[in-house]
Amino acid sequence: MEREEDRVETLLADGTVDHGPDHGEDTPPVDETRHSESLDEEDNTLKPRFIRKVTDALEADDQEQVYNLVEPLHPADIADLFELIDGEYRAPLARAINDLLGSEVMAEMNDWVREDLVDDLEPEEVAELAEQMETDDAVAMIEDLDEEDQQAVLAEMEPEDRAAIESALSFPEESAGRLMSRDFIAVPEHLTVGDLIDYMRESRDLATEFWEVFIVDPKHRPVGTCMLSWILRAPRSVPLADVMKRDQTLIPVAMDQEEVALRFQKYALISAAVVDDAGRLVGQITVDDVVHIIQEEAGEDALLLSGAGEGDINEPLPRTIRTRMWWLFINLGTAILASSVVALFEATITRLVTLAVLMPIVTGMGGNAATQTMTVTVRALATNQLTSSNTWRMIVREWWIASANGWGLGLLMAMTCQVIYQDWMLSFVLLLAMILNSINAGLSGVLIPLGLDKLKIDPAVTSTVFVTTMTDTLGFFFFLGLAEVFALH
Amino acid sequence: MEREEDRVETLLADGTVDHGPDHGEDTPPVDETRHSESLDEEDNTLKPRFIRKVTDALEADDQEQVYNLVEPLHPADIADLFELIDGEYRAPLARAINDLLGSEVMAEMNDWVREDLVDDLEPEEVAELAEQMETDDAVAMIEDLDEEDQQAVLAEMEPEDRAAIESALSFPEESAGRLMSRDFIAVPEHLTVGDLIDYMRESRDLATEFWEVFIVDPKHRPVGTCMLSWILRAPRSVPLADVMKRDQTLIPVAMDQEEVALRFQKYALISAAVVDDAGRLVGQITVDDVVHIIQEEAGEDALLLSGAGEGDINEPLPRTIRTRMWWLFINLGTAILASSVVALFEATITRLVTLAVLMPIVTGMGGNAATQTMTVTVRALATNQLTSSNTWRMIVREWWIASANGWGLGLLMAMTCQVIYQDWMLSFVLLLAMILNSINAGLSGVLIPLGLDKLKIDPAVTSTVFVTTMTDTLGFFFFLGLAEVFALH
Repeated sequence: MEREEDRVETLLADGTVDHGPDHGEDTPPVDETRHSESLDEEDNTLKPRFIRKVTDALEADDQEQVYNLVEPLHPADIADLFELIDGEYRAPLARAINDLLGSEVMAEMNDWVREDLVDDLEPEEVAELAEQMETDDAVAMIEDLDEEDQQAVLAEMEPEDRAAIESALSFPEESAGRLMSRDFIAVPEHLTVGDLIDYMRESRDLATEFWEVFIVDPKHRPVGTCMLSWILRAPRSVPLADVMKRDQTLIPVAMDQEEVALRFQKYALISAAVVDDAGRLVGQITVDDVVHIIQEEAGEDALLLSGAGEGDINEPLPRTIRTRMWWLFINLGTAILASSVVALFEATITRLVTLAVLMPIVTGMGGNAATQTMTVTVRALATNQLTSSNTWRMIVREWWIASANGWGLGLLMAMTCQVIYQDWMLSFVLLLAMILNSINAGLSGVLIPLGLDKLKIDPAVTSTVFVTTMTDTLGFFFFLGLAEVFALH
Repeated sequence: MEREEDRVETLLADGTVDHGPDHGEDTPPVDETRHSESLDEEDNTLKPRFIRKVTDALEADDQEQVYNLVEPLHPADIADLFELIDGEYRAPLARAINDLLGSEVMAEMNDWVREDLVDDLEPEEVAELAEQMETDDAVAMIEDLDEEDQQAVLAEMEPEDRAAIESALSFPEESAGRLMSRDFIAVPEHLTVGDLIDYMRESRDLATEFWEVFIVDPKHRPVGTCMLSWILRAPRSVPLADVMKRDQTLIPVAMDQEEVALRFQKYALISAAVVDDAGRLVGQITVDDVVHIIQEEAGEDALLLSGAGEGDINEPLPRTIRTRMWWLFINLGTAILASSVVALFEATITRLVTLAVLMPIVTGMGGNAATQTMTVTVRALATNQLTSSNTWRMIVREWWIASANGWGLGLLMAMTCQVIYQDWMLSFVLLLAMILNSINAGLSGVLIPLGLDKLKIDPAVTSTVFVTTMTDTLGFFFFLGLAEVFALH
């Protein structure tokens, strides 16, 4: 890309080297004093006072003031600023800081906030931003646009950049193909360390930031990787074949990003080669792009289990309401099912209304126990710790936990019940019901996610409904049913 | 260029080249064919068939067979193997593969599994492993040992390694000081690119893997960092001061690992300098160590919210039971509180037992709605997306969601209730109770985590109890209370 060539030019000509700020991933030098005035050092977030200053300046339409306030910020903090201020200030802020709204800022910005912003920009402005960005970041920005705007933006771009982005968009969302950057360094096996260094010194349009060099065979298939630190420390005459690491993790271009993240983590990768179906090197994924995914995918489970969807606090309100209400609606179904079980025993309850008082305890305890087991199972599945090799051990384990909890807490409650109601039969029924429901909870909590996973359904999304149905419905059934059987009144 | 050629000659004279593979972090070359036989390529986990082979060989006490099976595995997969086989096989496996049980394997292994294993090893064996490891990994292994064993192991170590580990252990657990590695490259500002390359070529005992070089002032305070890729591409004559990036994120040695992880993520760092109180460079943290933390910290919330503690499936059973039962015990308290509210209205229920049938719907829906809001709030707090700057916006947002859900689902249920029970008053009470409890749920779900966070209590650990107490207790109270008020019978 243009700016990159320029840089290398100056580098080789008169040795005057820029300090990164004008390109790619780098960050502008920051004047610490002004920095600390804007950033809360403790938790590294922007201070409310600073944000008020910005919004006040925006209110006063004092663009210069706004620019001066924002200028010393790190791009990631500028992105945060856009997320933290209210919606109506975002477009004005973007206009006020114009050239500060660089590619890194857009790359760091929350999807929804960025989408808002991009809608306010002209296609050529978006195209200009996209051209400065690494392919993967550009794709992240453009893939959210609707078909028509996408075309408009792509039309404004340099042919080669457009080609790169179009090919990226041709891969499924959340796949390695969307994630990978096409800027990487690949050299033939026969080079020596010296050749490689000279090649890198001389070539114009190389990636500005890379951590490993890929060595490829004549068919452009990766045969090894070489860490820059090794290249720097080996004598020039050593053949790359001798310093490179042959064992490497290759990422198929269609691999899901969650799987990519797991491999980066498992093998502690800094960068990895992405290969097409023919095994040819087509791109690289670097860890800094994966870090966000690891964080999202890991945090996702909590949100999915709770039915909060993406749980993104910047998501448009109507969309959030739709997601959450739909979930509550489904769970209402399970609640109705549970209460219809109660309805079956109306007669029993009328005879002994205390049953109505105690029944929430049986279902509540079951629900909590099931949630514990379910969450552990879902996490273990998501992190590949739970595989068919140790499934059985996991089930047995949860059975023991459930029994222990059932007996322990069941006895406790039964005694409390006896103290309060002086009714041996009732206390006995409560004990039995709690033991049964605890075991029911433990087994549902582990078997339902496992079953869904086997059926290739994401257990995080669907487990809760089934599990609570089991614990509530059966909970009421055990308790009221036993009460009926033992003719309590 | 000339100068460089000469220098290489001399280097070649006594040139000892390190071919990465024999070194600390590196991974043995893998014979792909045998690899694929052991690994399930789809999800990159060990095949059950392979694991059975290993355990069978262990049963048969055929150590050579075991060794040959395990030998081609990547250290991370060997670590997985230890986690996947049953407890009783672990010590025999360790003995069978002896030298394959290297530092990387131990570093990758689950804490509990490693602890088991370490207990079976002699102090000097542990010391030997620790000496091969990066400081941070060694610390992770040793910090789990009890005081006495720690001393025994440390006593067996080389003075300098011991010193490094003892100083690491002097920092609080989960702090940057424990995480950081003491192997890093720091050079004075006045060097040129050429000087640096020569320095790295000549010095023998440098870290084998590093991605950035730190430039320090005479007081050993970091003044900038330099990516290897820049060094490789700049002419030898350029002073480091001109290629280095002055703006950098410094990690105070006492910073909590969760905060470290957030900064790596926010600023897309590959490595960062760790500084002591005097601002002196004392270590570096690299992203591959942070990746595990990001994953843990992000996944943790789901587990903590469910009261499953660490939710580690390798945790000793008694410990797991204790954690979970304690949580269920506390929640039993809230359940008792809720049911005592029901007890208040026994008379009302006796007059109209249908109330007992419908009441779980009110509390159930409230509980689910609250969980959604609570989870979103906890995640937003954990990821620094929710700060005092946008707290108010968040509360208002949740208020709207809660009202929408309350009205929508309340009306739905009220109509259903009317169809079934033909009782306008009852349906009206149900509607009112569901709206009130939905808003109660929404506000508790956002205010309770926020309040706990303000009190510096981890909202993920404690929110659930308070929130469910609110939704259950008030849920029953709204519904039955209103029924009483409107004299339903």
